[in-house]
Amino acid sequence: METENQLQSDKTYAANILSIKEAEHRIKPYIHRTPILSSESLNSIAGRRLFFKCECFQKGGAFKFRGACNAIFSLGDDQATKGVVTHSSGNHAAALSLAAKLRGIPAYIVIPKNAPKCKVENVKRYGGQVIWSEVTMQSRESVANKVQQETGAVLVHPFNDGRIISGQGTISLELLEQVPEIDTIIVPISGGGLISGVTLAAKAINPSIRVLAAEPRGADDAAQSKAAGRIVTLPETNTIADGLRAFLGNLTWPIVRDLVDDVITVGDEEIVEAMKMCYEILKVAVEPSGTIGLAAVLSDKFRLDPAWKDCNNIGIILSGGNVDLGVLWESFNKL
Amino acid sequence: METENQLQSDKTYAANILSIKEAEHRIKPYIHRTPILSSESLNSIAGRRLFFKCECFQKGGAFKFRGACNAIFSLGDDQATKGVVTHSSGNHAAALSLAAKLRGIPAYIVIPKNAPKCKVENVKRYGGQVIWSEVTMQSRESVANKVQQETGAVLVHPFNDGRIISGQGTISLELLEQVPEIDTIIVPISGGGLISGVTLAAKAINPSIRVLAAEPRGADDAAQSKAAGRIVTLPETNTIADGLRAFLGNLTWPIVRDLVDDVITVGDEEIVEAMKMCYEILKVAVEPSGTIGLAAVLSDKFRLDPAWKDCNNIGIILSGGNVDLGVLWESFNKL
Repeated sequence: METENQLQSDKTYAANILSIKEAEHRIKPYIHRTPILSSESLNSIAGRRLFFKCECFQKGGAFKFRGACNAIFSLGDDQATKGVVTHSSGNHAAALSLAAKLRGIPAYIVIPKNAPKCKVENVKRYGGQVIWSEVTMQSRESVANKVQQETGAVLVHPFNDGRIISGQGTISLELLEQVPEIDTIIVPISGGGLISGVTLAAKAINPSIRVLAAEPRGADDAAQSKAAGRIVTLPETNTIADGLRAFLGNLTWPIVRDLVDDVITVGDEEIVEAMKMCYEILKVAVEPSGTIGLAAVLSDKFRLDPAWKDCNNIGIILSGGNVDLGVLWESFNKL
Repeated sequence: METENQLQSDKTYAANILSIKEAEHRIKPYIHRTPILSSESLNSIAGRRLFFKCECFQKGGAFKFRGACNAIFSLGDDQATKGVVTHSSGNHAAALSLAAKLRGIPAYIVIPKNAPKCKVENVKRYGGQVIWSEVTMQSRESVANKVQQETGAVLVHPFNDGRIISGQGTISLELLEQVPEIDTIIVPISGGGLISGVTLAAKAINPSIRVLAAEPRGADDAAQSKAAGRIVTLPETNTIADGLRAFLGNLTWPIVRDLVDDVITVGDEEIVEAMKMCYEILKVAVEPSGTIGLAAVLSDKFRLDPAWKDCNNIGIILSGGNVDLGVLWESFNKL
């Protein structure tokens, strides 16, 4: 039965366990195998054992480097030579710049004017060529299209791309090797690239593992999509988690729809509280989007739901660490 | 020749490779094996390969838990039952409280009134009984003596104690297993417990490894002691590195004198700059005392000294992560 499911998923989705294992092999020389941190204090607050997969320590400061690396090193030489282009609020942009630099090809990065300063600096540090756009997705996409036409660069979408999904999925391969007793994984959800890869890999290895998405209440398109049974987009989003404002794509949605067990939404206050715990207890700088898994595991919705009472060994993906210290300090003062 | 040296050190010093290996066996069930982080960005700034041993992720937020654990679990049951007492500005205090809690015995902690808030909170969180003293070492010692007389508790000195030195030395055993190519280790120096253990273990394993102490210019008693050939104490200290204000003890001094290759002093500005790099590039919260190894490796004194030009693979001990976010933010703004 599991084999059947797996075969089906191999056919149906934009990535599968084989493409994820290929990605692992392809990107291994370039990425960090990130460590797992744990804390008795947080375990006792949560009433479960928590294992933090620290993608904030990944190159470029976020998991995005895995997918970007896989995409860039998948390109044929002819394709690669003209470079890559993307539009992104930050972490994917920096990751793509860095991966392009490693391959020695140009990266054109369309960035909306309201992107966090530290993320823009990361792009520049890694040699990406910044092209500004307006904040709207329309403007971002049209500027990216224009660059693509002018340069012949390959568009690498931040999440709606099988190579990206496969790259992000390598996190599960590492996590389950590092902590084989994991029974649940909690993953931030935005466009769905991360959770798609993580879910495909984790459930191929162990179909009984539960994967839960964590989403900000002010950008809860995934929760609404799961409830409606179709992709729902929102007229606007409102959350401190700047990395979690995108909506599901046509490649990520089927995976989220079929394989993600549930979506847990949390408020910005809970996100900031989790960011504070990461800083004070784990001693790790985690950006708002990156702490949402911890916020979810501490939320009443998760704690009190009998469906999750057997979740004892929980992997939490701290997805990124790019947060301006001033922003962190201001948020803490608002608590 | 090396064997002779080692035999001599076995006889002469308060700890040795055997006591350190015993400590490792004793404390293994309780401590975190802390991860190594590295960063291409920092490597390229430093012009060497840097390997950060993240003791900021140790239980209690600092390496001190290793020594405290070794001391507490070395006690016979009769001794242990009356508890332990110490005076400490913070990390040793929290570590001793936590280790005592694990053994189920009381910990009496004498803390000077100017200790950082987050460190005092750690002591309380781990169940230590706080007893306040004045800031001076005289007051701290006399209050601790009084508590000892009243309770019969065993005094566990923060650094001038073979059990403590042996516990801290376990860092080298892990570090050299994790990164066998290490040729140099840079270690914060204060009372000398950490560097004594680290040096004894590292040089027993590989006598050609260089060990350098990193010390704040405003509390440079170790540099002055090495220069004078005897323990020098200072009338006062002035540094942001609150964990590095103690002076060498009679058990740590001979080890520092004979085996530590040099002392590199750095200013507070360099310490804060290193703290900023740890936060922004490594994504790790490191307290001022904990970042001094990075500050040292980036200092002109180290970079330009021909004696260290062959130091290519450098282990840097990020010794602790207990820093109030407000303090971090204020220091960054003063840069």
